[in-house]
Amino acid sequence: MNKKHISLNLNIRGVHQSPTLEINELSKKLNNKGKRIYRMGLGQSPFPVPAPVVEALKMHAHEKDYLPVKGLETLRQAVAHFHRQKDNVDIKPNNVLIGPGSKELMFILLLVYYGDVILPTPCWVSYAPQARIIGRNIKLIHTSYENKWRITHKQLNDFLLNEDDQYKPRLLVLNYPSNPDGGTYSPDELKKIAKIAKKHEMIILSDEIYGQLHYKGKHISIARYYPEGTIISSGLSKWCGAGGWRLGTFAFPPEFDWLINAMTAVASETFTSVSAPIQYAAVRAFRGGILIDRYLLHVRRILEHIGNLCTKILREAGIQVHSPEGAFYLFLDFSPLSANLKNKGITNSKKLCETLLQDTGVAILPGEAFQLPPEELTARLAYVNFDGSKALSMSETIPLNENLPEDFAENYCVSVVQAVKKIADWVNSK
Amino acid sequence: MNKKHISLNLNIRGVHQSPTLEINELSKKLNNKGKRIYRMGLGQSPFPVPAPVVEALKMHAHEKDYLPVKGLETLRQAVAHFHRQKDNVDIKPNNVLIGPGSKELMFILLLVYYGDVILPTPCWVSYAPQARIIGRNIKLIHTSYENKWRITHKQLNDFLLNEDDQYKPRLLVLNYPSNPDGGTYSPDELKKIAKIAKKHEMIILSDEIYGQLHYKGKHISIARYYPEGTIISSGLSKWCGAGGWRLGTFAFPPEFDWLINAMTAVASETFTSVSAPIQYAAVRAFRGGILIDRYLLHVRRILEHIGNLCTKILREAGIQVHSPEGAFYLFLDFSPLSANLKNKGITNSKKLCETLLQDTGVAILPGEAFQLPPEELTARLAYVNFDGSKALSMSETIPLNENLPEDFAENYCVSVVQAVKKIADWVNSK
Repeated sequence: MNKKHISLNLNIRGVHQSPTLEINELSKKLNNKGKRIYRMGLGQSPFPVPAPVVEALKMHAHEKDYLPVKGLETLRQAVAHFHRQKDNVDIKPNNVLIGPGSKELMFILLLVYYGDVILPTPCWVSYAPQARIIGRNIKLIHTSYENKWRITHKQLNDFLLNEDDQYKPRLLVLNYPSNPDGGTYSPDELKKIAKIAKKHEMIILSDEIYGQLHYKGKHISIARYYPEGTIISSGLSKWCGAGGWRLGTFAFPPEFDWLINAMTAVASETFTSVSAPIQYAAVRAFRGGILIDRYLLHVRRILEHIGNLCTKILREAGIQVHSPEGAFYLFLDFSPLSANLKNKGITNSKKLCETLLQDTGVAILPGEAFQLPPEELTARLAYVNFDGSKALSMSETIPLNENLPEDFAENYCVSVVQAVKKIADWVNSK
Repeated sequence: MNKKHISLNLNIRGVHQSPTLEINELSKKLNNKGKRIYRMGLGQSPFPVPAPVVEALKMHAHEKDYLPVKGLETLRQAVAHFHRQKDNVDIKPNNVLIGPGSKELMFILLLVYYGDVILPTPCWVSYAPQARIIGRNIKLIHTSYENKWRITHKQLNDFLLNEDDQYKPRLLVLNYPSNPDGGTYSPDELKKIAKIAKKHEMIILSDEIYGQLHYKGKHISIARYYPEGTIISSGLSKWCGAGGWRLGTFAFPPEFDWLINAMTAVASETFTSVSAPIQYAAVRAFRGGILIDRYLLHVRRILEHIGNLCTKILREAGIQVHSPEGAFYLFLDFSPLSANLKNKGITNSKKLCETLLQDTGVAILPGEAFQLPPEELTARLAYVNFDGSKALSMSETIPLNENLPEDFAENYCVSVVQAVKKIADWVNSK
């Protein structure tokens, strides 16, 4: 092919070569060869969208007008109310921005805000590529298994002490309950981080997309302790099972009118507004009510049950892993087994996941994809490849004040349990 | 307010100060004071989404999975088939990209393609702001009433002769039938432009979002004459009345795999994929069929009827305006009336529209918003502020081989006719 015409923004070259995609491609190849693949890579809610929300979409299928760039007024009211009620944070409807996924809103935030991006790692796969595409400086702060993959206020302080300009514009991205590790922050730690952020006038992008999937229903936002500097990111994708619908929300403090205005200007020149029927349906979701509350209680109970079972099996095999507090991920630290893995020719996370996939058919994502150093033997497992509708129906027959039966996962999440057992066998095999 | 923390990308500052918004704000103010406003500014289809397409959305309301970044396979097949059938251009499903509006796809194209952006003016309001946000060079080529607001191949040639680097990467944006003027290109002129583009290895972004609203159903794409260098942009917003649904399409030649791959990489880090229920419904729209064909025939007949009536009234008042060939806009040239307008204190397009709005309540958009020189006395009028459902129902009672009755617009598009008459009276008033 004649490449004379090719003229690409250099920030974009190579962006597509993510370890996630490579694992997907290898999965496809092996699957085509007839190998059974256990897809533990993709982080999608397995549960159906709650029935009243689907009904609302049907009712509003004819809505065809362009909606306001910031979002439908009633939806922004519902989102503000949601945050006031669930998070005890005073959000005004006028300070809510609706986007086609919180990912798109984050991209626009990075595009308009001129500052460094601070990422505690392991972190969600898209933060760093977004910053690279736009050309922002990325500062990674690596966390560890010992600290439950959480950044400590001391680490944040040390990082800032080593920076020349204490008041350089900075955006600190926190995600809790977390992708990729299912952990969250204690209120005390959030308070301490908030204090440092405030002192240095940092903006916090608080990615709380899994907030409603805190298993005890006790998610706490850092916005409680630093309301004037925190943007809360949320959306329908995780707690409402509607990832494919593409609706995300940003809630700003009133101090950030300059930022919401600039983001709205860019939104008006890019996505324009979120799909109208989807926005009308989202009003129903954010307003909540008994049906949606019950849905959430069942979803949390199921996910916690599976997460704990997986943790138990993996720990018994010698893998370091924390019990999840929310979301649907485990972050596995294989370092205690490094000697045996070295015998398999494995010295980095990419090779770890490739070899596991080739040997067992289990696809998980390497720690490298979450911005950890490539040589750390870590990986993310998502425990969602089961039929969420069936599991939900079964759970609904069991009173919410009881535990799910011990064999629930083995009956309703067969592939998940099989995959985790395959990992456990494999790490100790010669 | 303390502005210490404000740190914005300089390309974004000032983007929101568009003349469009200023007219909207003035409209609101006057409306709040009790003045009747005729909204001839917003370019939205007044017609409902065709019933089978709304039904398809209801049927697929439960679809919740993340779809492939490039778009649902069956939708890409339907779009490729649509272009093969309607435009006689050989598009492969794998070379189709689905986005949340063609505007978003254009933004991503400008972001990934590293080249100058050539805009014949008057042009759609978002091309230039997008390029400014990203920091691309914009080269405007002004057209004139005499040339029906179309760029001529001679103009394009002269522009290139004055450029130092004949093979600099360039993106030429053509839009036909056109927003803001309702005109289109002859096949002969498209051939000549194609030849020059080919010689200079320019990429053409051919914005054909109004292609199916060519009143004679005879839209011809420049991709016929320059298939290897043309990207066809389309979507549901205009011909399918679904602007608020947000679904746009790009169709690439196979030579542009490098471009579609780079755009897909950025899409995966931004909008991810278009809302799943909307994509399933769009399959129905792009597959078309008798019901949708009939819908289009009625829609075109109504729009042509109104457009011609407006043209007649405005011409009689001395305004220069071409009969529209498609879409739903007229581009008015007030220059023959400049002496009288000067007496009203009007010497540029912004002042023209502000004074018209203040004096008559009719809101139209100044030529400046379409990148014409501010002092040219031009403006865009959109003839869509009527009840499209009612007009469509009435049209459906009249056989398609007949003309609509002469008083159709006066009965079913009352506000449009009133507004146009108000403009006609105003320009000649003292």
